[in-house]
Amino acid sequence: MDLIGKRDAGELIDARRRAKGMSWTELAEAAGLPVVWLTSAVLGAHPAPAAVAATLRELLDLDEPLVEALIRQPYRTIDPELLADPTIYRFQELIQVYGPALKALIHEEFGDGIMSAINCSIDLRRGAHPGGDRVVLTIDGKFLPYDWAASEGEG
Amino acid sequence: MDLIGKRDAGELIDARRRAKGMSWTELAEAAGLPVVWLTSAVLGAHPAPAAVAATLRELLDLDEPLVEALIRQPYRTIDPELLADPTIYRFQELIQVYGPALKALIHEEFGDGIMSAINCSIDLRRGAHPGGDRVVLTIDGKFLPYDWAASEGEG
Amino acid sequence: MDLIGKRDAGELIDARRRAKGMSWTELAEAAGLPVVWLTSAVLGAHPAPAAVAATLRELLDLDEPLVEALIRQPYRTIDPELLADPTIYRFQELIQVYGPALKALIHEEFGDGIMSAINCSIDLRRGAHPGGDRVVLTIDGKFLPYDWAASEGEG
Amino acid sequence: MDLIGKRDAGELIDARRRAKGMSWTELAEAAGLPVVWLTSAVLGAHPAPAAVAATLRELLDLDEPLVEALIRQPYRTIDPELLADPTIYRFQELIQVYGPALKALIHEEFGDGIMSAINCSIDLRRGAHPGGDRVVLTIDGKFLPYDWAASEGEG
Amino acid sequence: MDLIGKRDAGELIDARRRAKGMSWTELAEAAGLPVVWLTSAVLGAHPAPAAVAATLRELLDLDEPLVEALIRQPYRTIDPELLADPTIYRFQELIQVYGPALKALIHEEFGDGIMSAINCSIDLRRGAHPGGDRVVLTIDGKFLPYDWAASEGEG
Amino acid sequence: MDLIGKRDAGELIDARRRAKGMSWTELAEAAGLPVVWLTSAVLGAHPAPAAVAATLRELLDLDEPLVEALIRQPYRTIDPELLADPTIYRFQELIQVYGPALKALIHEEFGDGIMSAINCSIDLRRGAHPGGDRVVLTIDGKFLPYDWAASEGEG
Amino acid sequence: MDLIGKRDAGELIDARRRAKGMSWTELAEAAGLPVVWLTSAVLGAHPAPAAVAATLRELLDLDEPLVEALIRQPYRTIDPELLADPTIYRFQELIQVYGPALKALIHEEFGDGIMSAINCSIDLRRGAHPGGDRVVLTIDGKFLPYDWAASEGEG
Amino acid sequence: MDLIGKRDAGELIDARRRAKGMSWTELAEAAGLPVVWLTSAVLGAHPAPAAVAATLRELLDLDEPLVEALIRQPYRTIDPELLADPTIYRFQELIQVYGPALKALIHEEFGDGIMSAINCSIDLRRGAHPGGDRVVLTIDGKFLPYDWAASEGEG
Amino acid sequence: MDLIGKRDAGELIDARRRAKGMSWTELAEAAGLPVVWLTSAVLGAHPAPAAVAATLRELLDLDEPLVEALIRQPYRTIDPELLADPTIYRFQELIQVYGPALKALIHEEFGDGIMSAINCSIDLRRGAHPGGDRVVLTIDGKFLPYDWAASEGEG
Amino acid sequence: MDLIGKRDAGELIDARRRAKGMSWTELAEAAGLPVVWLTSAVLGAHPAPAAVAATLRELLDLDEPLVEALIRQPYRTIDPELLADPTIYRFQELIQVYGPALKALIHEEFGDGIMSAINCSIDLRRGAHPGGDRVVLTIDGKFLPYDWAASEGEG
Repeated sequence: MDLIGKRDAGELIDARRRAKGMSWTELAEAAGLPVVWLTSAVLGAHPAPAAVAATLRELLDLDEPLVEALIRQPYRTIDPELLADPTIYRFQELIQVYGPALKALIHEEFGDGIMSAINCSIDLRRGAHPGGDRVVLTIDGKFLPYDWAASEGEG
Repeated sequence: MDLIGKRDAGELIDARRRAKGMSWTELAEAAGLPVVWLTSAVLGAHPAPAAVAATLRELLDLDEPLVEALIRQPYRTIDPELLADPTIYRFQELIQVYGPALKALIHEEFGDGIMSAINCSIDLRRGAHPGGDRVVLTIDGKFLPYDWAASEGEG
Repeated sequence: MDLIGKRDAGELIDARRRAKGMSWTELAEAAGLPVVWLTSAVLGAHPAPAAVAATLRELLDLDEPLVEALIRQPYRTIDPELLADPTIYRFQELIQVYGPALKALIHEEFGDGIMSAINCSIDLRRGAHPGGDRVVLTIDGKFLPYDWAASEGEG
Repeated sequence: MDLIGKRDAGELIDARRRAKGMSWTELAEAAGLPVVWLTSAVLGAHPAPAAVAATLRELLDLDEPLVEALIRQPYRTIDPELLADPTIYRFQELIQVYGPALKALIHEEFGDGIMSAINCSIDLRRGAHPGGDRVVLTIDGKFLPYDWAASEGEG
Repeated sequence: MDLIGKRDAGELIDARRRAKGMSWTELAEAAGLPVVWLTSAVLGAHPAPAAVAATLRELLDLDEPLVEALIRQPYRTIDPELLADPTIYRFQELIQVYGPALKALIHEEFGDGIMSAINCSIDLRRGAHPGGDRVVLTIDGKFLPYDWAASEGEG
Repeated sequence: MDLIGKRDAGELIDARRRAKGMSWTELAEAAGLPVVWLTSAVLGAHPAPAAVAATLRELLDLDEPLVEALIRQPYRTIDPELLADPTIYRFQELIQVYGPALKALIHEEFGDGIMSAINCSIDLRRGAHPGGDRVVLTIDGKFLPYDWAASEGEG
Repeated sequence: MDLIGKRDAGELIDARRRAKGMSWTELAEAAGLPVVWLTSAVLGAHPAPAAVAATLRELLDLDEPLVEALIRQPYRTIDPELLADPTIYRFQELIQVYGPALKALIHEEFGDGIMSAINCSIDLRRGAHPGGDRVVLTIDGKFLPYDWAASEGEG
Repeated sequence: MDLIGKRDAGELIDARRRAKGMSWTELAEAAGLPVVWLTSAVLGAHPAPAAVAATLRELLDLDEPLVEALIRQPYRTIDPELLADPTIYRFQELIQVYGPALKALIHEEFGDGIMSAINCSIDLRRGAHPGGDRVVLTIDGKFLPYDWAASEGEG
Repeated sequence: MDLIGKRDAGELIDARRRAKGMSWTELAEAAGLPVVWLTSAVLGAHPAPAAVAATLRELLDLDEPLVEALIRQPYRTIDPELLADPTIYRFQELIQVYGPALKALIHEEFGDGIMSAINCSIDLRRGAHPGGDRVVLTIDGKFLPYDWAASEGEG
Repeated sequence: MDLIGKRDAGELIDARRRAKGMSWTELAEAAGLPVVWLTSAVLGAHPAPAAVAATLRELLDLDEPLVEALIRQPYRTIDPELLADPTIYRFQELIQVYGPALKALIHEEFGDGIMSAINCSIDLRRGAHPGGDRVVLTIDGKFLPYDWAASEGEG
């Protein structure tokens, strides 16, 4: 009667993907979706729409409990231990070093508010440089101004 | 005989900047430097080269202790309380939600390694969209592969 | 050359308010602003527009450093010790007890997304009940669906 | 001989609910109970009265261990990792930003005391707005004044 | 223009009390108040009513800033380091050892709910025993049942 | 070959108790023991003497592993998550609010020392009050003065 | 009107002691007290009896605020950062490595209970060994059995 | 193919020991080893030499996986929750109260350095006193002076 | 369908290694790899290249799931409890004591930047000394200067 | 009457050093001491012998309070925030990634014990490599075997 957790399901689908010899990029193309989104969804950070789950089931021969897990609404949390993985930690370090400057510049350019992490897309690609190839990460989030609005008919 | 800390100095220089009516962008242009870098340096995350410090002294009429603080080598740390500021927290949340996917894609594209947070530049600009303007953040860091190298003459 | 922090400024302005015998409600009415917003702004959680700061200066005879602090952009953080104050802690406890249910119902009613804490207003009023008066808190935030959008001209 | 935990039971009952195609709202109506209360109780935050548990057993074909778990008195705790889920975190952020103001206004309106989290009800509904629909959350808790009372015959 | 914090004020008033040679008990009797309440109020955990503050000013020759601090509404928090003081820690240890049993017995005797920490009084007295005198602490708090009530005219 | 932990055993014995329709009070009376002690012991906070364990085995038809667990010496610890349960948390809050005052009054009445949490008994009973029944908790611990004693024949 | 904290006072008295060229041992002999006790008291962990404070004032030419601080009742806490000092940390490590064994042996030898940290003395001396001198630390605390006693006339 | 962890093995061997009716002291005598060492080793804090493991296997009829676990090199860590057990916590409290004094006296007697927790033995015995028997704990560790030495042929 | 985690796999391969009577050094020589790298990889800190995994399978008769785990990309994290193991903790302590000095000297010798933990090798060997043999640990990491570079065609 | 803390003194002496245009290396050579040791001592991690302090006073024109601070015995602790500085953090990361392997290899080569952080020296130098210069850090600590020794005449 047990349910398989979304993270455990993500690890198993990932293993199936490797066994099939498909890259994340190929999987995303097959599903017609941005690769950062698709990878996040498989690893448990998004609920997959039924059509996406069906595509993945077919491509990767997934059992029903894995499909069910893909579709299920997630808690978007992370085991804090993972944040110390060196590849992930460098992003943390960038926030530590540049966070106050980015905040100052967002306020200068847009006023009081935030860059949305909900209405947001992320792209990761290879950049060229004589000193060695580079990771180019583009985060593109809607600016949301602080706005004291209320529903119609409210205070 | 006391030294002024780099963060306190940053707040004071920022206040002087506002009093002078100069934007961060104008300051960066005057110094001929990228705005994210310049803002970070003023707020205490980088040691300013002497020439940059001299330019800022002139533009903002800074006293010597502030100039000295600008030049001093920092500890690049942050008061953890600041990471919960909503504008900064959204970056944290993006790592929480997308960190595992970005790690998987870096390894798929580049192999085992990291995106450097040291050899790295950041750009923040306004993006257009019918639903409202967007913050576009580009992080561009050198890929560093895990490499078990040793100095010449070492084991 | 020191700046007064926004929280310290908030405590001092609050003391001036009490000395003047003005309630928060009266202050908000004088400024023509919702009382939760105005109180938060004085206590340091929002940058006050210059006109609001001018009104407060006049009503409360504020010195310039306090006015300057009112206007300054805040870090919206809180000393974590304050979250354990019994009056504030009850809000924490409600999230602990009802958070998962509220998340489930937001997703059922609106789909995958969040209630915005940026485009949001809050109202607090007295409610009547035979067993004793009640605090009625209304939080009214825009629903933001997860949306993988990008700026025009981006990937 | 093992007991099933209330949270695990909640996940399983929720899965059964989805399989039956019933919404939380329908379930609450069938049980004649407020939907926030019913959802919380199923997810493990309240002990369900026997009659409610019987209704749920019938509606969802629950096995005895799940019924027993519904009725059992809970520890009303939460895995702290879940508090970082973006949908739940926004409530945390509101307390961080507005907590001191709400405390000040409760004291101004009611005197020294708290809004009860025990004698309290919560309602969540859709609000209309030209800029997009809104989540309207109403928290309605009894005001409890600090009161140094003692039982009859005590000190 | 600075305000003296309530804890700092408490330490200074306590020093004045010792210098005057008055016990807490004498102070409480002079003020006509329970000694645990009065001691807590002086140390910063309660706002003192104006009349109590006036009594204390007279008895202890307090300056105006101390009187003002006595009256001010507190954040009822504690420096977490103090919880490890051996005299205070034993109370923590009792909760650790007996907390689950007390919870079970409250639910058995009263049903689902809590002992209020707001409508609550505390008495501390000496108890006799052949093996040595004892500290007898009586905590007397109103039972509050979980109650899903709403203000009149609400949902 | 596995041992059942004392907490898990406590949950199972508690379930058996409920199934038998016996209250904690009835169980304590049958065992001739104070109810707070007996409840704590069953839930894992004390080693039960063999005679008590035998009584419980008979009353509740316990299997040998549960009896063995009852007798075993415990680590008297608590899952920190449980301290946030609202019914238990109120005790924590009382220490936070009144801890410094209780410390001051113990020192005033008894001198430098502590109230023992080892030589200590606890009683919980119902108190009457026109405003509603009350939980009356009496903690009765031996006063232990700081005493720099040494064994005979030691320095 | 400020009080000097007991830790700050301890550092200043220690500096005075070094300036006078007196060892802790000499100070303890002059005061007729065990050296671990005396050193702890000066560093802020005990309230010094008035006679001891008078002796120290004379020996070290202490000002009145330092004498007052010596006598004052302490919070016996420690800045947690200090527990990581290598000389202190080794004691922590011993508890980590041997704590469970010491607990098992105390229970085997004495039954259920603790070694008191209140009725307790500590001696530190030099031990001889061919491999190098040793620190010999003797901790001598009264065994306190768990005892469910109550004051006369209590339940 | 699974290995049994050293702590789990320790609990099982301890249960076997109790079933055999052997005390830790008898076990240590049978093995010809100090009882604190032997108890620690069984509970998982030391690797047992093969001969010791063989003796224990014979005395307690241990299965091979338990013998293997006894011999295995440990991580000498502790579940932090156990440090709050009252019997163990008192040692923590002694460090908190007396740590700075012991540090000062080690430096006074021996100079800059530490008492080793590696070259160290511990003895626990019963002490007599008219007020009740006492636990006498002797910790005997080599003094290690800070020494900036290097291997032959190094810098 | 379950995957075996890399750490669990590491413990099992280590047990197999001991059963085969091979040292880490012999294993590293057989694989033609530096011993610190090879040991880390087996314990789960690196993805093993397929050829290395094949060598280990042959040398140690590994089953397929262990081979698969060796090759899998790791999260390079550590259970924080392990950092307190005395053998590992000494490295932590060295950073605590010497970290600021090493930072100062890296900046003096190389300028603003870091020693890479990615392009880095580590060697551990025995050093001779009349006072006893020594552990000589050499860490050899590429210096990475802070460098604000961008990919070709980027801002 | 205030003492200057060793860390604050370290920052001031460092500023004086920079003003004098002396490198750490030159300072160490002038003092005839290893540079890592000397730098650590100035920054507050060691007590400077009187002769070293005298040399530094002369070279850097130090005032008496700074000289006194240099000589004073330190608490060898670190502000935990500094451990996140990128230059220091890389050392932390190396322990996280390689700590278990280093532990395994120390035990394989030396048996059960530790590398001393007390009898230990550290050298930092520049290494050459075609791919860029490297930081070569050599840590050379005495191996200390676990040894259950006791002082002569002890149990």
